[in-house]
Amino acid sequence: MPQLRLALAQVNPTVGDLAGNARLVRERAREAVATGAHLLAAPEMVLTGYPVEDLALRSSFVEASRDAVVALARDLAEDGAGDLPVVVGYLDRVVDAATQLDTTDLPEGEGEHGGTAVPKGMPQNCAAVLHQGRVVARYAKHHLPTYGVFDEFRVFVPGRDLAVVRVRGVDVALAICEDLWQDGGPVAKTREAGAELLLVINGSPYERDKDDTRLALVRRRAAEAGCPLAYLNTVGGQDDLVFDGDSLVVGADGAVLARGPQFAQALVVVDLDLAVDPSHDEPADAVPGVVRTVLSADPVPAYDPRPAPQADRLGEVEEVWAALVTGLGDYVRKNGFSRVALGLSGGIDSAVVAVLGVDALGPQGVTGVSLPSSYSSEHSRDDAADLAQRTGLDYRVVPIAPMVDAFTAGLASSVQLTGVAEENLQARVRGTTLMALSNSEGHLVLATSNKSELAVGYSTLYGDSVGGFAPLKDVPKMLVWELARWRNAAAAERGETPPVPEASITKAPSAELRPGQTDQDSLPPYELLDDLLEHYVVGAQGRSELLAAGFDATTVDDVVRLVDRAEWKRRQFAPGPKISAIAFGRDRRLPITTHWREEQSR
Amino acid sequence: MPQLRLALAQVNPTVGDLAGNARLVRERAREAVATGAHLLAAPEMVLTGYPVEDLALRSSFVEASRDAVVALARDLAEDGAGDLPVVVGYLDRVVDAATQLDTTDLPEGEGEHGGTAVPKGMPQNCAAVLHQGRVVARYAKHHLPTYGVFDEFRVFVPGRDLAVVRVRGVDVALAICEDLWQDGGPVAKTREAGAELLLVINGSPYERDKDDTRLALVRRRAAEAGCPLAYLNTVGGQDDLVFDGDSLVVGADGAVLARGPQFAQALVVVDLDLAVDPSHDEPADAVPGVVRTVLSADPVPAYDPRPAPQADRLGEVEEVWAALVTGLGDYVRKNGFSRVALGLSGGIDSAVVAVLGVDALGPQGVTGVSLPSSYSSEHSRDDAADLAQRTGLDYRVVPIAPMVDAFTAGLASSVQLTGVAEENLQARVRGTTLMALSNSEGHLVLATSNKSELAVGYSTLYGDSVGGFAPLKDVPKMLVWELARWRNAAAAERGETPPVPEASITKAPSAELRPGQTDQDSLPPYELLDDLLEHYVVGAQGRSELLAAGFDATTVDDVVRLVDRAEWKRRQFAPGPKISAIAFGRDRRLPITTHWREEQSR
Repeated sequence: MPQLRLALAQVNPTVGDLAGNARLVRERAREAVATGAHLLAAPEMVLTGYPVEDLALRSSFVEASRDAVVALARDLAEDGAGDLPVVVGYLDRVVDAATQLDTTDLPEGEGEHGGTAVPKGMPQNCAAVLHQGRVVARYAKHHLPTYGVFDEFRVFVPGRDLAVVRVRGVDVALAICEDLWQDGGPVAKTREAGAELLLVINGSPYERDKDDTRLALVRRRAAEAGCPLAYLNTVGGQDDLVFDGDSLVVGADGAVLARGPQFAQALVVVDLDLAVDPSHDEPADAVPGVVRTVLSADPVPAYDPRPAPQADRLGEVEEVWAALVTGLGDYVRKNGFSRVALGLSGGIDSAVVAVLGVDALGPQGVTGVSLPSSYSSEHSRDDAADLAQRTGLDYRVVPIAPMVDAFTAGLASSVQLTGVAEENLQARVRGTTLMALSNSEGHLVLATSNKSELAVGYSTLYGDSVGGFAPLKDVPKMLVWELARWRNAAAAERGETPPVPEASITKAPSAELRPGQTDQDSLPPYELLDDLLEHYVVGAQGRSELLAAGFDATTVDDVVRLVDRAEWKRRQFAPGPKISAIAFGRDRRLPITTHWREEQSR
Repeated sequence: MPQLRLALAQVNPTVGDLAGNARLVRERAREAVATGAHLLAAPEMVLTGYPVEDLALRSSFVEASRDAVVALARDLAEDGAGDLPVVVGYLDRVVDAATQLDTTDLPEGEGEHGGTAVPKGMPQNCAAVLHQGRVVARYAKHHLPTYGVFDEFRVFVPGRDLAVVRVRGVDVALAICEDLWQDGGPVAKTREAGAELLLVINGSPYERDKDDTRLALVRRRAAEAGCPLAYLNTVGGQDDLVFDGDSLVVGADGAVLARGPQFAQALVVVDLDLAVDPSHDEPADAVPGVVRTVLSADPVPAYDPRPAPQADRLGEVEEVWAALVTGLGDYVRKNGFSRVALGLSGGIDSAVVAVLGVDALGPQGVTGVSLPSSYSSEHSRDDAADLAQRTGLDYRVVPIAPMVDAFTAGLASSVQLTGVAEENLQARVRGTTLMALSNSEGHLVLATSNKSELAVGYSTLYGDSVGGFAPLKDVPKMLVWELARWRNAAAAERGETPPVPEASITKAPSAELRPGQTDQDSLPPYELLDDLLEHYVVGAQGRSELLAAGFDATTVDDVVRLVDRAEWKRRQFAPGPKISAIAFGRDRRLPITTHWREEQSR
């Protein structure tokens, strides 16, 4: 029989929207009160949005976050949710955990920060516990990730103490995201403190297969902590990151007690049957490095549980589709746009981007422009028109030959154009056309390049690479086809028109920048290319490892050279949703200027 | 009377060019042997180049660095420099300092790394001491910066022990760059170990006024270490960083004993009169955390010193000019280009970029293209031609009206172009024209936008912002004018033709995208704007601080809004040389998607 009804607010905050984010928490608190919950949690840095990057270094922003958390505590009480303890992530100055409410800056130079003195004013990634109109406890994240997309050591000071709050007689230990991924620290302390529940609030970005990794991790940590573990994750898109929600509650034995939906907001309510120690009291406070706050010591009488949600898992490709739609839709909406525009070539990439746009924003939110040149085949134009008809998007045709001809003529006396220059010229005339549309009507332009193209530099800078967001930036070509097939099949299953023209899926990929051109003229088959890129880009394997993995030396050397030489182009490319372990961008920081070639290695 | 002749190799390595960088060290070693030096040092990570960013995470690269240091030791001996101890920076696996030569990976999870387990294969930023054909000692950097442009915690494991090598009876302690900037650690240990010289190898990027900061720091640390301090810095450009050399040797009393040139390679040789303790011997080895290696215990008899170099300081503006020429020239050369191209508008920005190009690459290395539209004034074209004549650069004229007209006509039936769209169209036709030239003849295109424009978003993406490198990226508009005036005055002093047309300096700045337009139609005067940007962008001050600094609320709100809203554009902009404390780029990492507005703050 349970003793604690826990509610997890899996919400979608926006970076910098302190008032709006507080409203999200208040709405969920009202809902939690209505369900009779005893404790509510909201995600890591939910008040500020996450990640805030160098905004954390601006004192005006830190102060606003502090003000917001105090105001939220008061507002919750006014909303009638004052009796409900609410855990919220926010940004705070470095505080002395012992003083809790009376926050004081450490003097400059006091405290350690990666071997360096704590810079004055550097804040902490915190969780506050709000109760009866006040901030009654705090916790600062201990483990600050500096790998992948994360730069937390740059902007946060690590915390030192574990916070435990007693709610209805249950001792709940708090932790934040990376604290769970690292051995020792808060998880070990939770067991030491004898806590009966470990509550972890997260801003953990989506990656393919990460849900399985997380589940295994959460189970392992629950066993180590010796108590159930509630894992709450953010949902929604923020620049190049997508948070997938997928919140979890597991028992100390690893049983999944509840699971929230992926890529959707929800209040996940679960009744927990906890091994509450009736004798736990003051002596336990003496565990060094544990700060205990008693909110309500009287246990709730055991009651009948309500069924906990066990959201269905999305399929492997469906999940990627949902991540891309979420990332795209949130980027567009949170940046104040309502419409996107893109060039429709009749090819698979632009078709998939268009359908993602339609799924995120509706057909009226997407303008597709066919930009045929003299090399564009009739079928390409037909396929673009077919896509428009299938999806109902706003469709326009702007032939580019007159502009290309004007350039050729205008440049004739000054420059002898090469073949490559002529190919790129077409792409740039297309890019300029889309930007003219954007400037005139306010569309956000979407770049349609996929990860395989970006890897080898097969896009024209300021041409087909123009755009403020690139939905396929982290999607290899083979997966683009899979996505198209999955989306068509899903439509067929629902009795709808499959949105992607079959011809766009089946024809040989071509940039159509010269007669008869196909991608495979100059690249290995995409199946091989994508496999190699997975090893080189995501796996960061060197030449000998690639050869050991079975790739032939010529292919390795050719592809690696292409990837290395395209770094300068990628630097000028738009953000796009990360779905792999290593996306291009801040996941993979390489110099442009480098003479290192893998061919030199042993 | 001195006992040690120290030679500092202030050289310009290239990231990834392990063989070429080793050659730089060998050349300087031969020179050092010829001067009778007793100890030679080369900069931080000189063998790999610096910074290598995520290349450090690729095991093939780490192994290549290890091989290179072993090969260099052998080659130095073959060159006849085997008796000369040489300190070189390189990249190595995590080593147990006690075993020194027999490097072994720590088991995964052993060791601390910012509170997290050491990831398997993560390397260290090391210094090796080469002697008699072998690697005889190592040191790993203790303090890993994570602020500004640095991400060292991301890719390196911090070292723990201090390395001291005894050379000709002198105990020399080693440290690397950030070790000097942080209190405690290697500097304190140097005193504890009783070392007689602290040798610090650096890769310290240029910033305005940093030379004064460094000098004060070096003096303070010499006093703390209780011995002379030799500070060796790299020189040259690497992507957005410029290393200024400016190596220094100071006495324990703070006296400057030698100073190397700024922005030039050099071998800085200095004879040091050290307070050598003749009794220092084995017991000293017992200082915990100090690993001592005796290379040659017999002191050199005191001898007459040779005069040490005391390079003249460059003037304040001259120094910036030298940084920009170095950054531009090295970016071009190290990336395999020999020529640059840019649009010449007749305005000050393109004129200064052109002259920087001429100073870096010679007039034959610069193509300036006048791209007049129907709104371009006659004087603009004259000024561009005048600049071409003064500098001797390759000059071409491509009127853009026909291409602009082709777009207007081609788009007429699909899009109703707004005024802004028409303005941007002109800029994009120019960008496309320059890229066609680049694709055809192999120029690197230079973007001419300055820091003030980039800050407020007054450039057209894919238009005047096209280019692979942006020499003025970190140069505010007022400083652009100062640079032009300084460069003209310097020419006049040498009896040369001042390269920048006077009219380009004196006329009101205008994008000339519509009739009669000037920058001041929509921006505060540049003097005010640059001052405000210095506070907001470089100082990261919030609204209340800006108001307290005396800026009026309307100007603050308008400018801050412009800066915040242009983040997405800056993300797609080329790199350019950092000359300020906070340049746009990795110095200032802010979300694109953010609803935070300083107006919300108290």
